Amino acid sequence: MIVDCAVYEQGHRRTGDLTVAEASRACRRDGAFVWLGLYEPGNEEFEAVRSEFGLHPLAVEDAIHAHQRPKLEVYEETLLMVLKPVSYIDHNEVVEIGEIALFVNPEFLISVRHGRPSPLKQVRERLERESELAARGTGAVLYSIVDRIVDDYEPVVDGLSVDIHEVEEQVFSSGRHNPVERIYYLEREVLDFRRAVQPLAAAVERLATRHFPVVEPDLQPYFRDVHDHLLRVNAQVEQFRELLSSALAANLTQISVRQNEDMRRITAWVAILAVPTAVAGIYGMNFDHMPELRWEYGYPAVLIVILMICLFLYRRFRRAGWL
Amino acid sequence: MIVDCAVYEQGHRRTGDLTVAEASRACRRDGAFVWLGLYEPGNEEFEAVRSEFGLHPLAVEDAIHAHQRPKLEVYEETLLMVLKPVSYIDHNEVVEIGEIALFVNPEFLISVRHGRPSPLKQVRERLERESELAARGTGAVLYSIVDRIVDDYEPVVDGLSVDIHEVEEQVFSSGRHNPVERIYYLEREVLDFRRAVQPLAAAVERLATRHFPVVEPDLQPYFRDVHDHLLRVNAQVEQFRELLSSALAANLTQISVRQNEDMRRITAWVAILAVPTAVAGIYGMNFDHMPELRWEYGYPAVLIVILMICLFLYRRFRRAGWL
Amino acid sequence: MIVDCAVYEQGHRRTGDLTVAEASRACRRDGAFVWLGLYEPGNEEFEAVRSEFGLHPLAVEDAIHAHQRPKLEVYEETLLMVLKPVSYIDHNEVVEIGEIALFVNPEFLISVRHGRPSPLKQVRERLERESELAARGTGAVLYSIVDRIVDDYEPVVDGLSVDIHEVEEQVFSSGRHNPVERIYYLEREVLDFRRAVQPLAAAVERLATRHFPVVEPDLQPYFRDVHDHLLRVNAQVEQFRELLSSALAANLTQISVRQNEDMRRITAWVAILAVPTAVAGIYGMNFDHMPELRWEYGYPAVLIVILMICLFLYRRFRRAGWL
Amino acid sequence: MIVDCAVYEQGHRRTGDLTVAEASRACRRDGAFVWLGLYEPGNEEFEAVRSEFGLHPLAVEDAIHAHQRPKLEVYEETLLMVLKPVSYIDHNEVVEIGEIALFVNPEFLISVRHGRPSPLKQVRERLERESELAARGTGAVLYSIVDRIVDDYEPVVDGLSVDIHEVEEQVFSSGRHNPVERIYYLEREVLDFRRAVQPLAAAVERLATRHFPVVEPDLQPYFRDVHDHLLRVNAQVEQFRELLSSALAANLTQISVRQNEDMRRITAWVAILAVPTAVAGIYGMNFDHMPELRWEYGYPAVLIVILMICLFLYRRFRRAGWL
Amino acid sequence: MIVDCAVYEQGHRRTGDLTVAEASRACRRDGAFVWLGLYEPGNEEFEAVRSEFGLHPLAVEDAIHAHQRPKLEVYEETLLMVLKPVSYIDHNEVVEIGEIALFVNPEFLISVRHGRPSPLKQVRERLERESELAARGTGAVLYSIVDRIVDDYEPVVDGLSVDIHEVEEQVFSSGRHNPVERIYYLEREVLDFRRAVQPLAAAVERLATRHFPVVEPDLQPYFRDVHDHLLRVNAQVEQFRELLSSALAANLTQISVRQNEDMRRITAWVAILAVPTAVAGIYGMNFDHMPELRWEYGYPAVLIVILMICLFLYRRFRRAGWL
Repeated sequence: MIVDCAVYEQGHRRTGDLTVAEASRACRRDGAFVWLGLYEPGNEEFEAVRSEFGLHPLAVEDAIHAHQRPKLEVYEETLLMVLKPVSYIDHNEVVEIGEIALFVNPEFLISVRHGRPSPLKQVRERLERESELAARGTGAVLYSIVDRIVDDYEPVVDGLSVDIHEVEEQVFSSGRHNPVERIYYLEREVLDFRRAVQPLAAAVERLATRHFPVVEPDLQPYFRDVHDHLLRVNAQVEQFRELLSSALAANLTQISVRQNEDMRRITAWVAILAVPTAVAGIYGMNFDHMPELRWEYGYPAVLIVILMICLFLYRRFRRAGWL
Repeated sequence: MIVDCAVYEQGHRRTGDLTVAEASRACRRDGAFVWLGLYEPGNEEFEAVRSEFGLHPLAVEDAIHAHQRPKLEVYEETLLMVLKPVSYIDHNEVVEIGEIALFVNPEFLISVRHGRPSPLKQVRERLERESELAARGTGAVLYSIVDRIVDDYEPVVDGLSVDIHEVEEQVFSSGRHNPVERIYYLEREVLDFRRAVQPLAAAVERLATRHFPVVEPDLQPYFRDVHDHLLRVNAQVEQFRELLSSALAANLTQISVRQNEDMRRITAWVAILAVPTAVAGIYGMNFDHMPELRWEYGYPAVLIVILMICLFLYRRFRRAGWL
Repeated sequence: MIVDCAVYEQGHRRTGDLTVAEASRACRRDGAFVWLGLYEPGNEEFEAVRSEFGLHPLAVEDAIHAHQRPKLEVYEETLLMVLKPVSYIDHNEVVEIGEIALFVNPEFLISVRHGRPSPLKQVRERLERESELAARGTGAVLYSIVDRIVDDYEPVVDGLSVDIHEVEEQVFSSGRHNPVERIYYLEREVLDFRRAVQPLAAAVERLATRHFPVVEPDLQPYFRDVHDHLLRVNAQVEQFRELLSSALAANLTQISVRQNEDMRRITAWVAILAVPTAVAGIYGMNFDHMPELRWEYGYPAVLIVILMICLFLYRRFRRAGWL
Repeated sequence: MIVDCAVYEQGHRRTGDLTVAEASRACRRDGAFVWLGLYEPGNEEFEAVRSEFGLHPLAVEDAIHAHQRPKLEVYEETLLMVLKPVSYIDHNEVVEIGEIALFVNPEFLISVRHGRPSPLKQVRERLERESELAARGTGAVLYSIVDRIVDDYEPVVDGLSVDIHEVEEQVFSSGRHNPVERIYYLEREVLDFRRAVQPLAAAVERLATRHFPVVEPDLQPYFRDVHDHLLRVNAQVEQFRELLSSALAANLTQISVRQNEDMRRITAWVAILAVPTAVAGIYGMNFDHMPELRWEYGYPAVLIVILMICLFLYRRFRRAGWL
Repeated sequence: MIVDCAVYEQGHRRTGDLTVAEASRACRRDGAFVWLGLYEPGNEEFEAVRSEFGLHPLAVEDAIHAHQRPKLEVYEETLLMVLKPVSYIDHNEVVEIGEIALFVNPEFLISVRHGRPSPLKQVRERLERESELAARGTGAVLYSIVDRIVDDYEPVVDGLSVDIHEVEEQVFSSGRHNPVERIYYLEREVLDFRRAVQPLAAAVERLATRHFPVVEPDLQPYFRDVHDHLLRVNAQVEQFRELLSSALAANLTQISVRQNEDMRRITAWVAILAVPTAVAGIYGMNFDHMPELRWEYGYPAVLIVILMICLFLYRRFRRAGWL
């Protein structure tokens, strides 16, 4: 599905709707470029675009089937960049991962989007607002998109960070939480996020350090800035993994401590109850000659003895922290 | 065993059966190449092929004994590529790993297959269908084979992924599963799969970036595409390992929690039963002076007292989540 | 907020207050440089400084928003160095991490500080004391700041080391500590510290080995010295992580041993108490023909037998280390 | 101790015994080389050889004291290669590691062997059988030895693999094995084996890729083949380690499950026995007014009630999988 | 404190005591060098030496404060090498780590020692014994020191190895050891040792492969030999860590097994004792109509029944391995 097809000349979007063929012709003029936005295109639809703009046959598969890893490929003068926009659905602690493939050369930028989180609309609006950005050509637009997507990793990192803090509190709270399932699935989300983010750093670094016709030298510091941002995100994701792995181990200890406390408490009560049973058992024996049984105050005396032993045990168990 | 021996000229398979010697002569003509397919050849059989096509003596061992790792060797103008086709037998969660050794130079392609999963037949059929592919020579056939094998890794990854999801559900279900054995053997399969796949990436990368007479420059983007695919598979295999390792730890916690719940429940019932035993023991003592024994309603009163204590304990244990 | 704005000429600080514009003009003279110190500047405030000194537009974001990773960026002749001063708050075992961005070229040094621990005041005082240091230009000042910050990592390492020793003592003490929470949060602090320190080593190494106009060759051994110091800190941080990870595992064992000892002790007492209950139960049976019941010394004899069995059990349990 | 001292001329072993001095003189002739085999030589013995053949003084220590790691050193035109032949003693699951130091230059090959497993005799016999091998000079002999030793790693890998399979079966069998000690010591053997094998890969790769006077270019594919073999062995050793580490964790879970089953079973029986004790205790009370005691069928009725409660508990416990 | 100050000319130590100034003058002559040995020098003391020999100002800090990591720094023609001599105090299983800083150029060698284990005296004595060694200049002396220190790592490795073997025996012995504390502290010592040894390998490798005026080419094989030795030590230290980490996990399993055996045994006895209690409880009921109570042999019959049930349980528990 074609989402948008616009020609930018000297930084300004030309008004009116365009067909793909008109756009392809328009972008051959000096200082003009086309941004063609596609959303989950079908096979035939994309084939038409491909032949119009002369994209490499391999691009078809990359653009139509999602599940690529972030990467930068160079097909003659056209760059193919695959990016993974990510958003964090807080209420069920799930990382949602989309995919955007960008074909960029000085004359056009074709974006193929799959899945949900998309920063492209915002970039388009910014482009219309800031004509000097559009005037710098497709390289600057590429930067805007990459920068936007990487900036959007920040709330994901924050969301994961908040949830890890919550899990830590559960692990070490005195309540009887067992957050093992939550820890495990958080780790899964962290790993998914890492898979979407980590390979991008190398791709952006190439844009920042090597020469490409699309990326003018004065744009490179901007890509270096994005690269730095990615390194920061990666470092935090690594730390999340290490924390969650330690939290898993710490949780086992905490669970084991709490469970044992329960068992110890119940068993301690059984031990206390065994005292009257044993003592009463003795005075329940049927020997003919048991002088205590004949004493007038034998019964209360025995009761008091039992009570005192139980009290003594209770106190000791209490002091030992068992009750 | 010779499976197939065919000469392709200008993209078309020459009709009729050929002996190895005829094929060897035919492929010396311009624009023609031979594809000789062998299946677990014996020593003598392969020695004949080897001397006919002038393969390196070391190749004998590599081709006859399987259990090579995926690799790319260069013997003068002939490439030796070892590949590991993999399939996933879902019902017993086993990864089946075969082996294909390919000797490729511009004049011939000799495939030596061991074990079961084989994509060669499909490649051969495609070759007969798409004559422009065959017309591009042995490099394109090599690509078709490698691409096919790597594409076939995808269902293996999916199969493992589904099984890991199932294991996760077992770990965190409320039922009394102990999927430790399943986790362990899944890890084993993942490790076996990794061993078959991981070393291939470096070999394919060499095909994509260095110069070989067999691989024409316009084929290299295709190998780069396969390389990218392999990196994706490798990233997922790594994630599987990390998930299974965490699942092993999480399972220990879950098992320990469930077991302790059982023990706590049984012990709590023993504690409740200890109350009537203790109280009844006291009124079973044989003291002469126990006024309660003489009361008319002593017996039902004691029964009620016992019942109330037991009920009180039951409620407390219930509230504490122990019953 | 502008903290300080001073011009140093031939190593001496020129007296009197300066506006940013005056400072910018002053530093264009030979042998003079400006040190402009900012503390959490606002957007407009920093924009004024930026345009006055001709800093790169990207610098704005890096300087105003903290949460950068330590790094070294080169914008034409101006270096941007981001550093993380760290201090250790011992009483709650927290690592406090600030941030300092330094824009350095031969004419000026602009420091932008965020958060608490700051060594800049001390460096400034040293500069006023040692005029030969100031006379060597901004490179020497840069060194002084980096050296100071890295030196201040030492007490952090010491503080963490002391706390890890304390935790070890808790783990292996005979008391009933469960330092699992402390171990976990120490690990968290160690990871935070590592994230602040580790990336700096590569940045300082670049200062020590590559050529920059700001850093004169005779300053490079000094940066090499700092680099060495950083490697030492990093090695220790790594060791902390490994120790804490082992301490977590060792603690689980210790906790499990101590808990089991408690359970074993209570259960052993229950076992001892079951002896009189069982024996007394037998002599509490109501058979008509139980000759022992008629014996004159039956009762004391049974008491003695019970006592002896209990004593025997007590001794055995004691010897087995169960009581 | 001198094991063998032979001169090979044009691929044929010259008959008759030789002294070291004669051998040293003989090998200076064209197309001839000496193979001098020593077994755990003494200081003086080796010193004589060293000065006769002009070996580097450092070689003395390397040759006399074993416990070197596998390596390749170049002393002018003489190579020193240290290899670790390994065999697997199946009955006690121990990896036996020997050591062979080879001094090789075009004129001589001096082998110094320590410890038990030795492939040298087999190589010597092959040399006498295949005169074309001996005719290719010391480089080919070096290859034969290295190839033989690396081939002999295969049965070690197989032996370890079989034992790991056995351990897995023990871990997951329903029997009451605790293979923790076996797992640990297998891991120890795997680590020892790895230490003997892993560093060799780099040494062999140098022989396969760099230029040495001893190794003629047409020998290099052979060393590449050995290198490939070593990579395969290394990959498998790595997998063994990962499997054993997972087996250790899985075993803990299995042990814990089995132990808990035992405890649960015993405790469940105690709980069932507590029922008759409690009920009988109640009818053992001495109240004057307990009408049930006077009923004619009170006793059997109570017995039946007790039996039914016990049966009910038994069934429930059974269904819960506790008995 | 100056420990020794000697001038060596043509390999022979010049007799008589020298001041630092005399030594400094003497070593400017051809074929002569000074070895100045300092032990934990004070600030002023070292400053005097520094200015006399023209050492770099940075050297002061490195030499006076210990706690450097092993390293090799090049200050113009003077090398600074920092080494960590290590010894193993067997009786309390502690690794003692000292520090030696060596300033070496062709004219002098200044050694600054901190802490206890010191091989310098032995090197000095060797130097006086072997004049040809001293005649080769300061590079040879540097080698002697490095070689000695690295040789002294061997007994440390052996000591740790012996202790790890002892710990393994404790873990898997049938006794009730809990070597968790010992394992942990051994790991700590191994980590400390690693930190002292590991960085040295890179420093020695530089001496073996790059060109320095102090190290003549014919000395480089000697440093290569030391480097090899260090790699061996490092490989073993890594293995120690892996073994200790597995021992920690194996110990948890063993502890858990042994503890459970104790609990199971005690609980089994409680279960056996519950039988007479329950049976006797039944015959202690006060029903009017209990025919068994009237039988003449009722009492012994019940005793026999109790005994038989207990014996039956005892046998079953025994067979199940619970007693």
